[in-house]
Amino acid sequence: MIIVMSPSATKEDIDKVENKLKTVGLQAHLSVGAERTIVGVIGDKKIIGNLEMNMLPGVEKTVRITEKYKLVSREFHPENTVVDVDGVKVGGEQLVVMAGPCSVESLEQLREAAKAVKEGGAQFLRGGAFKPRTSPYDFQGLAEDGLKLLRQVADENGLKVVTEIVDKDDIELVGQYADLYQVGARNMQNFQLLKALGKAKKPVMLKRGLSATISEWLNAAEYIAAGGNENIIFCERGIRTYETYTRNTLDLSAVAAVKELSHLPIVVDPSHGTGRWQMVQPMARAAVAAGADGLIIEVHPHPEVALSDGDQSLTPKNFNLLMSDLGKIAAVMGRTI
Amino acid sequence: MIIVMSPSATKEDIDKVENKLKTVGLQAHLSVGAERTIVGVIGDKKIIGNLEMNMLPGVEKTVRITEKYKLVSREFHPENTVVDVDGVKVGGEQLVVMAGPCSVESLEQLREAAKAVKEGGAQFLRGGAFKPRTSPYDFQGLAEDGLKLLRQVADENGLKVVTEIVDKDDIELVGQYADLYQVGARNMQNFQLLKALGKAKKPVMLKRGLSATISEWLNAAEYIAAGGNENIIFCERGIRTYETYTRNTLDLSAVAAVKELSHLPIVVDPSHGTGRWQMVQPMARAAVAAGADGLIIEVHPHPEVALSDGDQSLTPKNFNLLMSDLGKIAAVMGRTI
Amino acid sequence: MIIVMSPSATKEDIDKVENKLKTVGLQAHLSVGAERTIVGVIGDKKIIGNLEMNMLPGVEKTVRITEKYKLVSREFHPENTVVDVDGVKVGGEQLVVMAGPCSVESLEQLREAAKAVKEGGAQFLRGGAFKPRTSPYDFQGLAEDGLKLLRQVADENGLKVVTEIVDKDDIELVGQYADLYQVGARNMQNFQLLKALGKAKKPVMLKRGLSATISEWLNAAEYIAAGGNENIIFCERGIRTYETYTRNTLDLSAVAAVKELSHLPIVVDPSHGTGRWQMVQPMARAAVAAGADGLIIEVHPHPEVALSDGDQSLTPKNFNLLMSDLGKIAAVMGRTI
Amino acid sequence: MIIVMSPSATKEDIDKVENKLKTVGLQAHLSVGAERTIVGVIGDKKIIGNLEMNMLPGVEKTVRITEKYKLVSREFHPENTVVDVDGVKVGGEQLVVMAGPCSVESLEQLREAAKAVKEGGAQFLRGGAFKPRTSPYDFQGLAEDGLKLLRQVADENGLKVVTEIVDKDDIELVGQYADLYQVGARNMQNFQLLKALGKAKKPVMLKRGLSATISEWLNAAEYIAAGGNENIIFCERGIRTYETYTRNTLDLSAVAAVKELSHLPIVVDPSHGTGRWQMVQPMARAAVAAGADGLIIEVHPHPEVALSDGDQSLTPKNFNLLMSDLGKIAAVMGRTI
Repeated sequence: MIIVMSPSATKEDIDKVENKLKTVGLQAHLSVGAERTIVGVIGDKKIIGNLEMNMLPGVEKTVRITEKYKLVSREFHPENTVVDVDGVKVGGEQLVVMAGPCSVESLEQLREAAKAVKEGGAQFLRGGAFKPRTSPYDFQGLAEDGLKLLRQVADENGLKVVTEIVDKDDIELVGQYADLYQVGARNMQNFQLLKALGKAKKPVMLKRGLSATISEWLNAAEYIAAGGNENIIFCERGIRTYETYTRNTLDLSAVAAVKELSHLPIVVDPSHGTGRWQMVQPMARAAVAAGADGLIIEVHPHPEVALSDGDQSLTPKNFNLLMSDLGKIAAVMGRTI
Repeated sequence: MIIVMSPSATKEDIDKVENKLKTVGLQAHLSVGAERTIVGVIGDKKIIGNLEMNMLPGVEKTVRITEKYKLVSREFHPENTVVDVDGVKVGGEQLVVMAGPCSVESLEQLREAAKAVKEGGAQFLRGGAFKPRTSPYDFQGLAEDGLKLLRQVADENGLKVVTEIVDKDDIELVGQYADLYQVGARNMQNFQLLKALGKAKKPVMLKRGLSATISEWLNAAEYIAAGGNENIIFCERGIRTYETYTRNTLDLSAVAAVKELSHLPIVVDPSHGTGRWQMVQPMARAAVAAGADGLIIEVHPHPEVALSDGDQSLTPKNFNLLMSDLGKIAAVMGRTI
Repeated sequence: MIIVMSPSATKEDIDKVENKLKTVGLQAHLSVGAERTIVGVIGDKKIIGNLEMNMLPGVEKTVRITEKYKLVSREFHPENTVVDVDGVKVGGEQLVVMAGPCSVESLEQLREAAKAVKEGGAQFLRGGAFKPRTSPYDFQGLAEDGLKLLRQVADENGLKVVTEIVDKDDIELVGQYADLYQVGARNMQNFQLLKALGKAKKPVMLKRGLSATISEWLNAAEYIAAGGNENIIFCERGIRTYETYTRNTLDLSAVAAVKELSHLPIVVDPSHGTGRWQMVQPMARAAVAAGADGLIIEVHPHPEVALSDGDQSLTPKNFNLLMSDLGKIAAVMGRTI
Repeated sequence: MIIVMSPSATKEDIDKVENKLKTVGLQAHLSVGAERTIVGVIGDKKIIGNLEMNMLPGVEKTVRITEKYKLVSREFHPENTVVDVDGVKVGGEQLVVMAGPCSVESLEQLREAAKAVKEGGAQFLRGGAFKPRTSPYDFQGLAEDGLKLLRQVADENGLKVVTEIVDKDDIELVGQYADLYQVGARNMQNFQLLKALGKAKKPVMLKRGLSATISEWLNAAEYIAAGGNENIIFCERGIRTYETYTRNTLDLSAVAAVKELSHLPIVVDPSHGTGRWQMVQPMARAAVAAGADGLIIEVHPHPEVALSDGDQSLTPKNFNLLMSDLGKIAAVMGRTI
């Protein structure tokens, strides 16, 4: 931490700052400039992390230098981590694709979707059984019945299952059926859920919050890692901005940022990220070109009758077109699909 | 819902739209313009709520006309609601003030703070026992010990207790000690928590999410109300914008908006809303002038040693100055404090 | 400026940083911590202002400590400045109110509006003769004819004239008719216009840009001041956020921020700031309670037939109600209206 | 336009709406629902464009259906437009790359940069001679001397010149030296400049404003087109969001959006869009994969001594790496570079 003293700070003010730092076991390092004094704080990161100095007289502002997350940081772990999801490697040479309907609605719907997903070449079947919806009156998902259908249909097609978990009490239940837990954007800072997933035995895909900074997102992942579960996959799914033409603004620079700051893999969700099925194909290509390790895409056999998010779902036919496109971009990136 | 057909939509496209609406029990009402046809959808609100039409050929866009929330809406309940928190009326003539430290740290700290809070004229002691923190390595609160201190010190001073709840499993525990549950910004769309609070016996103060729209906020409240608990108080606490000078951007127009759209009371948190103690006084005055029913303010006996949010906490002395100011603004608004 | 070296920076990297600073006449002050070295940069502010260090090997990031604006800063000029607009003092004890239609449409319209404005107690007549409109096909204003009407009708009622200038070539023309130049949000960083207004003989009201930070806004004012014209009034008019219920998000904390950082007066525009006439009254009260030096408000004799921004205009009757409210809040703030 | 009447609107309210529409020559088309009446407005687009109805009693809200821009819209002109910039085709099969330093600083700097730009395979030399800077004390560019250097060095290397114009008075001057006018983000709604460029004889590249919606951007282009100059190239350069890790948030979905809505070409600026040279390569690849027609990239022979934006400039070596990458992505997209 750096403490910037105001130009009008007195010798006494600076002494107080030094004394407070000493009291908590930290060292002060002074730079005396023409206009103002800058105090560098040296010592234990954890103590600095909880330090509050702005209220002391003469302090103009403080600047934090180091991030608090550690286990998920590339500084701590320089090589890329490959997360193994029941045999499927995420973050390795092969891109992973997770696809399927927004919500699990029925056996027929899921079977049709899964067939398309498998034929397109995806490794994961996605589908929501617990749906966090803006209104209490919207369809909330089929719960355990949905999980059962997911597992059954995934098994029929040789696919893995990824599905959202919204309640820490469901960790065991969801874990019975799914291979990969998904934490949705609205729960990115549901710290109770994150702590519980730190004790879970299966990997976690952590979606970025609607207006989460990169730093908050990595700290959220640190909650899971600190609990003992380091099998984490990030998922960029668009952030909230002033633009209304798209449902969210897909922030592909987050892919490059996460690759700089963390060793963990990252996938991209162009379906929620744009909210428009017409944009899924170009944004999926762009995500791979930006360096993403995979994609999660909404596919619905009949999007026009979907119970949620039909507007952003691909038909099986469009999904096939997309996958063939992705193969070519993947090759340029030295990857397979 | 209104369905806007594209200028190139065919007769067949329009027929398909009409047929789909009929199938689900809705009526179509066509307006044929020079360039395009507009379809008004008439019928059951719930069915319309789940309708997805954008995937149909020839549909350019759809516009939703009605909000999904009902119990919390002023349309449904035109008169103001006064929420009774163990005898203290929120939303009535008297403004309510909730004040205290960000986190409960110790008996001494809390006693000093509570004394100041009481002397200033506040009705509620606030303080966090469960703290949702960005990093897992930050101080997470004293948990039940903190709750006990809150209750003890509040009782010593004749104050009510408001404190944050972060886990649905804690409803009973927190309810033993608190008079008012607080749902924090990060949990505004933690629907499991909201549903559980819908069954709780005590009132709930629902803070606005970091980047929640007014509509999402009212829908979140509807989750609580739909569960049977209509004793809800809104709390505006600043939204996330591009501006970095303040911690958040306090959106006082949200006070006027909530008053238009809902019958429930709303209070304002200028401490988190600005993140700078120097701004708490002007923004608190402004909040009352905008029509807020109360305030929640951070007061710490020694902000420079606070374990969290010292930068935005008032000293007891500054809190007293603030309260005397508020009294005058309240009088202009025809209210007391 | 502070230069944060990466934990992996070598002795050589740090030498390079020191050498570069020496070359341009600056001094380096090193703080060597356990994990990383921090370099404080000491010397001429202007040289530091243009310094780029992030590309040097081993540099993790740089943090700027001082703002570049000077003439408009409170640090440079601690007392409040009162701007004299042809005898009307802005920033003194008396609040100023500027009111009138969004666009000047006709002599009748303007006369009716001006009468209401005067009767309500405002000092300025506002009205646009040059309108910056999103679409080239929207009404662009009456140009010089509009200016003439403004001057004539203002004189008939003993009011001052404030009107927008959109082109540096119009400085003389607008200056013939207006008492106060208004720079609109879209032109806040039209530096050619700002430089030209630096040479103008009349005061300037500088609206905040749609997504301008406080710092950019003060720097924009510095362009005018650096040209020689220090008669500047800030105007907060709402910023762009994700919220769509209001046209913009009125940022009243900007009032407190500008008061901290600058000696110049600031007024608030609740009409554009909310875009809803129902919100103008509460937000105007709140602005005064936050410490604003005045208000600019849209008043139209018949808002329902206005050529622009009717949705946010008050009727004369509502304007009168508002002014009586403001008087009471002003009194609490120790001001008159 | 659609007018949504409130549930409490009376027959008289609806009559008033119909009458007002008739008065201005428009037709009303009523849909009477169970709860509320919806009025479709039919007639001349221009009249509807200026219509304000929200002030009428009983009107709840109005929804605009059609965009105001026309000449730049794909609806009006379904085929892609290829803009010819002195023989270089923008929007055709070949991707265009514009590269060079942020600011023109000296003959030596520009020659070194141009050599790298040419060798990398770019067609345009970019460089600022007029720099719109946040602070009046920052380097403002070499003005005409900079333009001369640009032309000279571009000619030496067989490159075209693109450079920013900040003042309508400079159209002739800049046009003497440049092949393509660039309008910067801060001037996207400088309508005087746009109108003047509508009369210019050379093509214009219009950067997206810092917080401009897609719709505002297309309307800004319409100002140029309406003046007679339809040779317009869009440039996405990042938008302002809450995220601070990147300088701006590069919105690649804007590429797909502009392709849907307009027939004009679009290029992407990953240098300003991210503000970090490490991210330029992945984001450039992603832009091409998203369907962009070209790129504009900062290249500086010695970024560590650049007078502006060194942090986001590529060295010649990194630029070469980038170009070789782009060739492969271009091939996948069926394009050349």
